[in-house]
Amino acid sequence: MQATAHEGPTPVELKHAYRLMNHGPTVLVSAAHGGHRNLMAAAWAMPLDFTPPKVAVVIDKSTFTRGLVEGSGVFALNLPCAAQADLAFTVGNTHGGPEGVGDKFRRHGIAHFEGQTPGLPLVAGCVGWLECRLLPEPHIQQAYDLFLGEVVAAWADARVFDGGRWHFEGHPGLRTLHHVAGGHFLLPSDSVQAQLPDRAHP
Amino acid sequence: MQATAHEGPTPVELKHAYRLMNHGPTVLVSAAHGGHRNLMAAAWAMPLDFTPPKVAVVIDKSTFTRGLVEGSGVFALNLPCAAQADLAFTVGNTHGGPEGVGDKFRRHGIAHFEGQTPGLPLVAGCVGWLECRLLPEPHIQQAYDLFLGEVVAAWADARVFDGGRWHFEGHPGLRTLHHVAGGHFLLPSDSVQAQLPDRAHP
Repeated sequence: MQATAHEGPTPVELKHAYRLMNHGPTVLVSAAHGGHRNLMAAAWAMPLDFTPPKVAVVIDKSTFTRGLVEGSGVFALNLPCAAQADLAFTVGNTHGGPEGVGDKFRRHGIAHFEGQTPGLPLVAGCVGWLECRLLPEPHIQQAYDLFLGEVVAAWADARVFDGGRWHFEGHPGLRTLHHVAGGHFLLPSDSVQAQLPDRAHP
Repeated sequence: MQATAHEGPTPVELKHAYRLMNHGPTVLVSAAHGGHRNLMAAAWAMPLDFTPPKVAVVIDKSTFTRGLVEGSGVFALNLPCAAQADLAFTVGNTHGGPEGVGDKFRRHGIAHFEGQTPGLPLVAGCVGWLECRLLPEPHIQQAYDLFLGEVVAAWADARVFDGGRWHFEGHPGLRTLHHVAGGHFLLPSDSVQAQLPDRAHP
């Protein structure tokens, strides 16, 4: 069977990277350092700037991922899709590392690949990926668990993100996840095109 | 005509305030100071903590709203709904204040009301409101246009938010807006309940 040209990660122009997260999807934060790697769910993530693109994400002190981000200075935001809801909920409900379930990728059989950043695991089957360089801000990391990053590479599944825009029509399983609570995720389906007031008749 | 008991703003327990924004909706930031008031759209906003609830939002230096937030030390995040898409797009595409269109509330005929914070305008017809006290962090405000706030009061339209959860069924016009680009908003419609792996058979 031949894969379509559009399947899997396709490069996204950095000027469009913010568009991947502009509509507020839940992300999976992945990182690796010192022979460990991990993956956690984060509904609290957002774009922070257009160009160079930056992001903000909340990474709690209790997470194993946090040490990997601080140690390596890089992390990825992976955008899981509807077909991965169980995966997203599962990695959000288990603690990784030596004191937890160990390597979540292995434990949960999560396929992954490498993008531009050596050793940084990206989750296969997601619909968007942002590889980020940590922008160290020790005060807000400590006081608010708030981590900032500059996006150095971005990818998307071109079946649903093309020309700098999401278009999920015809691909219900590839819609982004928007966590409400307890593994209940909203999915974008409809859309609306807003109109500006008629400038010809102010 | 008698309004239903559930229409309009109903108090949300502070422990549930983060749930209003957990799924990543676009917000309208409102503020008032020194006889001025303003309103801007922000897709870059997210929860920052559970309790006391905190939020983060990006407010560009070019906005008139920013000075009002810095001057008053308070701001509100209003969650517009599908029926307000034109309003959200319009306030996101006009510059307020003396050098812009003036008072956007008056200019665009936007009804508003007061919550718990004296003088802070909340946008009528929205489906959620978070009144916030600015947590001054001059460095990240200057370097990243990133503003943090502690939520001091929260409200929601109980027709679609109740028991700490969104449930938009039967109210398509009250769904939250999730901005893609250029006034094109995604709307949550479907949902999925994720399952954890069967712990009885690991």
